[in-house]
Amino acid sequence: MTRPQGNSLSMHKPQSKMQGVVFDGKLRFVTDYPVPEISPGWALVRVHITGICQTDLEITKGYMGFSGILGHEFVGTVEQCADSWWIGKRVVGEINAACGQCEMCDIGMGRHCPYRSTLGILTLNGCMADYCILPIANLREVPSEISNERAVFVEPLSAACEILEQLKPESWERAIVLGDGRLGILCSWVLSTALSDVTLIGHHPEKLKLAKWQHLKTTSKIDKIESGADIVVEATGSPDGINQAIELCRPRGTIMLKSTVATNCDLNLAPIVINELSLVGSRCGQFKDGLKMLETYPDMPVERLITARYPVEDAITAFDRATESDSIKVLLEMT
Amino acid sequence: MTRPQGNSLSMHKPQSKMQGVVFDGKLRFVTDYPVPEISPGWALVRVHITGICQTDLEITKGYMGFSGILGHEFVGTVEQCADSWWIGKRVVGEINAACGQCEMCDIGMGRHCPYRSTLGILTLNGCMADYCILPIANLREVPSEISNERAVFVEPLSAACEILEQLKPESWERAIVLGDGRLGILCSWVLSTALSDVTLIGHHPEKLKLAKWQHLKTTSKIDKIESGADIVVEATGSPDGINQAIELCRPRGTIMLKSTVATNCDLNLAPIVINELSLVGSRCGQFKDGLKMLETYPDMPVERLITARYPVEDAITAFDRATESDSIKVLLEMT
Repeated sequence: MTRPQGNSLSMHKPQSKMQGVVFDGKLRFVTDYPVPEISPGWALVRVHITGICQTDLEITKGYMGFSGILGHEFVGTVEQCADSWWIGKRVVGEINAACGQCEMCDIGMGRHCPYRSTLGILTLNGCMADYCILPIANLREVPSEISNERAVFVEPLSAACEILEQLKPESWERAIVLGDGRLGILCSWVLSTALSDVTLIGHHPEKLKLAKWQHLKTTSKIDKIESGADIVVEATGSPDGINQAIELCRPRGTIMLKSTVATNCDLNLAPIVINELSLVGSRCGQFKDGLKMLETYPDMPVERLITARYPVEDAITAFDRATESDSIKVLLEMT
Repeated sequence: MTRPQGNSLSMHKPQSKMQGVVFDGKLRFVTDYPVPEISPGWALVRVHITGICQTDLEITKGYMGFSGILGHEFVGTVEQCADSWWIGKRVVGEINAACGQCEMCDIGMGRHCPYRSTLGILTLNGCMADYCILPIANLREVPSEISNERAVFVEPLSAACEILEQLKPESWERAIVLGDGRLGILCSWVLSTALSDVTLIGHHPEKLKLAKWQHLKTTSKIDKIESGADIVVEATGSPDGINQAIELCRPRGTIMLKSTVATNCDLNLAPIVINELSLVGSRCGQFKDGLKMLETYPDMPVERLITARYPVEDAITAFDRATESDSIKVLLEMT
């Protein structure tokens, strides 16, 4: 990669070394990582705040075989970029860097480009550092009325919005969300904006309390739930979740799979065939949808999900905190 | 149940005892089974010919816990019925007897009625006998130009047609069908009527030869197949089929699950989530679609799939023949 020429491209010249959270078989905080250089069409972003995601925790267990700087949830400010309009803009960034030339890219599905790299997940260093780089096409400006603490939720919130994009549910449909982790709660909130009858089921009373918003119903008593839901979202992160989802779904209903837990599950396909269920895998969303959601619902209490904030140099402690069962979202602040 | 009154309801009075193929823990041919009596709204059908289905074979291994007369594929003639229009008509019959009053029945989804009985599968004696009964609403007249040998395929052909009803594919989409059994072949034919690029993959050269029709491609070399299909139909009847289907399907593509094998499979859900695949269970279809297919495509060579025909008294031999690996469709003829 070559750094674009000319002072007009940058606010100020970054240091050549930076702080960062690295996983290379071991989780480490480092202070001497090279600042990344940008290729044409890419931007260098100074990171302000990042979130620790379940996927990051999975990566530290070997998921995706990733090695490098972790992290894909961030808010930052563009410092270098060939298009000067972006310099100084506060941004979030779509995490998949697509090739732009394949069949999937052609149909606007760059997030499924087989040649993609993914921020902090697949062959591209992540955002848990002073700087990260992304294609300019991936950047989304954060409107001034959305704080850093809310904007850092755009990535998981967009992933939750993906359900609406894939499913286009009717407002009268009844939905159940399984799992009171961060993604389950965000899915239940997003579904609540479209459906009048949404129930979040989880095992953590304190998380269910935090999840209360608008008309969302919450419960830890799965055996009291009426089955026959039109939509069931599986966001437990547990291999058992899918079997519970199958039991709760009506014939011809839809189960959205949001857990990316990479373990096998023992599944009897017969009820899926007999009841003609649809199981729909659902991963990343489009950031425009997450940002729109934050703008449209300024009272959606995403900040409530912040369990703790740590300076980046305390990353190891922060990762430990993120693995605790009461943890929802742990943030790292760049210093 | 009470038998409707009046001679006008029947062509002639059936015998009180009949021949039939019973499974009650053991497969047996009997000659002294009581002829069923009809309730109001039901019809008594004299059976001419029936097919042995994979589901019948599964039932003889304990599937569904069914006990009684087997069979759900038939062609027959109506002998008793309150609506005299039907008397003497040659018919096939939808296999699910719905309650007609629940939520699923309300939306025209009687085949998913939770209170349904199912011919030869669930609490309703089947058609491998001189007579069977079904609600009048389930009967479909067989047009005179369709022979018994073709009409007996309406049930599995309708199940294949269900894919088109659920999926509504675009003609440019590429489909792969896994499994060269009867259902796999019928699915590949039905898809061939809607799509220009369909490949059937199986392990039996002689079955693949029988499957050749129109522009359908057939192969036993799965490793030579280009992955990235828009639609993959899993009809192998094997727990491994689903993992092969996942490998062959493009991101955001659809896998139709047609196997009702009741064994568990070891499934890694991560690729389904990452590639945002849809897994859609698909079971019975609507007989109007199967009949329409036979009328529209008189050259669709369903008769080719008949491996052997036996008189009903040789049912045990016929069931043995149906379990052999080269068998596609074994018929039983009433005598």
